[in-house]
Amino acid sequence: MGKNAARLFWPWLQVTVVSRRDVRREVEAVGAVFADRKDRALKAADFVFLAVPVDIIQKWTARINRYTRSDCVIMDCCTARVAAEEALKNIQRKRFGIPEIRRGTIPVIGNPDERIARYLGKWGCKLQPMTAEEYDRSNTDAGIAHFLGMALDLYLDDAQRNRLKTAKSGAFLLQLIEHLKGNSPTTYRETQVLNAYMSEARKGLIKVLENTDKELDKGIFRFRAYPREQWRE
Amino acid sequence: MGKNAARLFWPWLQVTVVSRRDVRREVEAVGAVFADRKDRALKAADFVFLAVPVDIIQKWTARINRYTRSDCVIMDCCTARVAAEEALKNIQRKRFGIPEIRRGTIPVIGNPDERIARYLGKWGCKLQPMTAEEYDRSNTDAGIAHFLGMALDLYLDDAQRNRLKTAKSGAFLLQLIEHLKGNSPTTYRETQVLNAYMSEARKGLIKVLENTDKELDKGIFRFRAYPREQWRE
Repeated sequence: MGKNAARLFWPWLQVTVVSRRDVRREVEAVGAVFADRKDRALKAADFVFLAVPVDIIQKWTARINRYTRSDCVIMDCCTARVAAEEALKNIQRKRFGIPEIRRGTIPVIGNPDERIARYLGKWGCKLQPMTAEEYDRSNTDAGIAHFLGMALDLYLDDAQRNRLKTAKSGAFLLQLIEHLKGNSPTTYRETQVLNAYMSEARKGLIKVLENTDKELDKGIFRFRAYPREQWRE
Repeated sequence: MGKNAARLFWPWLQVTVVSRRDVRREVEAVGAVFADRKDRALKAADFVFLAVPVDIIQKWTARINRYTRSDCVIMDCCTARVAAEEALKNIQRKRFGIPEIRRGTIPVIGNPDERIARYLGKWGCKLQPMTAEEYDRSNTDAGIAHFLGMALDLYLDDAQRNRLKTAKSGAFLLQLIEHLKGNSPTTYRETQVLNAYMSEARKGLIKVLENTDKELDKGIFRFRAYPREQWRE
């Protein structure tokens, strides 16, 4: 997400990246600057975009309160919003969260800075205000896809995966696993472990699977969502 | 599958379609002939391709034994092979089953007729002999995709589906459901209800989901199938 944000805001803003990891080359490749000193970078910033796991946010609170100017605006992209808002609460600056960055309608938690909102609007983002609770509740749907992908990764052995590669229906299972490649495990972990609504959503899905399994064992087949006219073509 | 077979064998063979349903127009559109009389069509046939659910096969056994020539070859495309072999056992003609029709390696149960095998070979099919048990066991993987699709169709309400349309990960769940459009419910029903290995496979998946859910509830996140180098790009 950090790299996405660097690509998004450059060249409108000069982007300086602070990272524990040696990502100078990657950072420079997207037109940004790698900061040699955290404190100087923070002192110079009009905006700080936090692209760190929820667990790490508290480590940044003191630094932000100490080094940034009082009119600096803090953004973050944490996925588990209730947990993020709790972790962010001691930051003494204006702030808001955008857990998803893409064109189209994207959720915003808190009051977005007007300059950022205008820029995102030009880029193609329509910000939709949401509470942290609303976001977490709605994000359980995508979380179910993550959950299934994680479980399928444990369930399917190599022989099964090889067979599924050529099976029309089966290939969808591989997509559910392999799609994880494009996502950060941090997002998965935060959605599953830190989103308070996720545990119930997982159990709801398992309940439906158990009921469906029991019915099928009795020979009851209820699936008729798509009428004959649709599936025949 | 009947229409696929008509497309596949025409114009190498003259294809005559026998159906309870009035499908004359569809049949003629793919170059085949719609039979006005079942018995005459069966008497004239070199090959009979049964594209009917397993439950219906026994109705056809007496007709085939009575009307077809003794050297007529019977093919079928039932999905649940152990159940199909049981239902087909009283047919007094040479016969074999091809549960999947597509280019590439496809399973064949029983001894394929040489003329058919040669034609399928030219079209791009490599026939791989399998026992009915082997096929049913391997087909539980695709059956798991059907099972998840069916359960998700019960689990997701309209509001959730609308949200998922724009979510990157979530869209995979919709594909799992909507993909069913391209498949016949008969295939789904036979795989879930008549494949003796499917019940155990469903329970195996549910067990993995339950264990994963329990671990996540405890904050244990084991997912690390794709190393950082892979998911970062």
